Amino acid sequence: MAKVAFIGLGVMGLPMAGHLLAAGHSLRVHTRRKAKATRLLSRSGTHWADSPAEAASGAEVVFICVPDTPDVEQVIVGPNGVIETATAGTIVIDHSTISPRATRQMAEQLGKNSVYLLDAPVSGGDVGAREATLSIMCGGDRSAFDRVEPLLRHMGKEITYCGPSGTGQLTKLVNQILVSVTTLGVSEALIFARKNGLNLDTTLRAVSGGAASSWQLQRLGPKMIAADNRPGFTVDLQQKDLRLVLDASEGSSTSLPGTSLVHQLFTAAQAAGHGRDGTQALFTVLEKLASTH
Amino acid sequence: MAKVAFIGLGVMGLPMAGHLLAAGHSLRVHTRRKAKATRLLSRSGTHWADSPAEAASGAEVVFICVPDTPDVEQVIVGPNGVIETATAGTIVIDHSTISPRATRQMAEQLGKNSVYLLDAPVSGGDVGAREATLSIMCGGDRSAFDRVEPLLRHMGKEITYCGPSGTGQLTKLVNQILVSVTTLGVSEALIFARKNGLNLDTTLRAVSGGAASSWQLQRLGPKMIAADNRPGFTVDLQQKDLRLVLDASEGSSTSLPGTSLVHQLFTAAQAAGHGRDGTQALFTVLEKLASTH
Repeated sequence: MAKVAFIGLGVMGLPMAGHLLAAGHSLRVHTRRKAKATRLLSRSGTHWADSPAEAASGAEVVFICVPDTPDVEQVIVGPNGVIETATAGTIVIDHSTISPRATRQMAEQLGKNSVYLLDAPVSGGDVGAREATLSIMCGGDRSAFDRVEPLLRHMGKEITYCGPSGTGQLTKLVNQILVSVTTLGVSEALIFARKNGLNLDTTLRAVSGGAASSWQLQRLGPKMIAADNRPGFTVDLQQKDLRLVLDASEGSSTSLPGTSLVHQLFTAAQAAGHGRDGTQALFTVLEKLASTH
Repeated sequence: MAKVAFIGLGVMGLPMAGHLLAAGHSLRVHTRRKAKATRLLSRSGTHWADSPAEAASGAEVVFICVPDTPDVEQVIVGPNGVIETATAGTIVIDHSTISPRATRQMAEQLGKNSVYLLDAPVSGGDVGAREATLSIMCGGDRSAFDRVEPLLRHMGKEITYCGPSGTGQLTKLVNQILVSVTTLGVSEALIFARKNGLNLDTTLRAVSGGAASSWQLQRLGPKMIAADNRPGFTVDLQQKDLRLVLDASEGSSTSLPGTSLVHQLFTAAQAAGHGRDGTQALFTVLEKLASTH
């Protein structure tokens, strides 16, 4: 069994760490607010570390699952960061969705000590994390990936090696373009249906079987109809990811008119107080746009 | 067995009429170019009619499957149209995707002679027509729908009664909003992937399993990657449908920013000569937008 560190025990990290523990690995854990770790620490095989550096000390594999680029930078190269204690051959796996460029920079820094950084952002949300059905998109050194793949299989169903450092993040951003533009389509379709007097449940059933079908339609459609804005994935987090997309698209001279539009409409959603609501709140924004007459 | 007329034997109508014939119904058929009917006419039980009026004469059910609103108007209320011979109790089923407003007007006109008009646009493309797996969205009189539902089951898998006259068309337009905006998402996602150096096949596989998945991604994604613009559904037909969407959205004070954007980008596709290509040509348009530096 591998000596494993897990840093970041939020809504995603906590169940992911739980799967590693259940598989028999001993865990050294650290997270910003220790209270979040209480239940995990009550299970045998888990030990608290006061900092990322302490967690990584002696670990063969270091998992990170935190919100944003600055958080990962803090954990890896900040004071008391992983870089201070990780030794040659250690593999750091970053499950956060962050900047591909920052990823490559940190991979280079860690590489100077022969420490590997794999970018391994996930898709599938809190449900996927709890049920160990995440999609994991992995970039970085191939042999390092091969060594940790069995560990990733405890947490995810679809594990893809995408290529060199940063390509896991880029692939996740491709995923987020698809998710967000499709959400816009679902929102517009259902607002059109409502404004034209259609029965929304019937409409949803009629269009769900064919060329219009999507995961977003199946999952978010019913929530939009029920005006249930409880988050699976929040507008604020989607916006963070779309900023990464648009930043990378500028860097690669790629024009993404639809994605830009979605980003702007989510900005309207945030302005209307929907930042912590689920992305299906886009429907609410369009409903407002359509009710000013 | 019902006495059935079928008007319009294009890429959709021909296989649909064939299913009715195979089920044992006798058919009177009419289409603009008689040559298209040759093979169908060689099968026993099929008879040629020189006009829609002649086809509808004595028929219990009249099927129509033609491209656009003016075509349906021509067939139903034009000279030698269905309205001239259809008698009380006849049910006219229009499988074309056309204006909901024009549909309601024609339903009213036919209703004066106690002839029913059901709007029954389909989704699923030529493949769905050939394999009898179409989704059929039906609006109009409920009891008329109940009487012809067994006939529709010869051609489609998912048959939905949507409500009064026009609601079948409106539901189809909901379908087209979903289809077109999702196609934009797929195009932007893959162009982002290509411009950022990702392996497109790997990327497609990595994002296909979860929240980003859609019928459009599965079917059009591989075609975009292969630069295969052969049509399942053409840009020109998608544009016709999007004009119907935007017309109905104006009429109902509905703001559809994403759908409008897709319509504009498909206009660029048409301008670049992709009108008769499949909708996956949107990828080609975005590739051009991204290659001017």
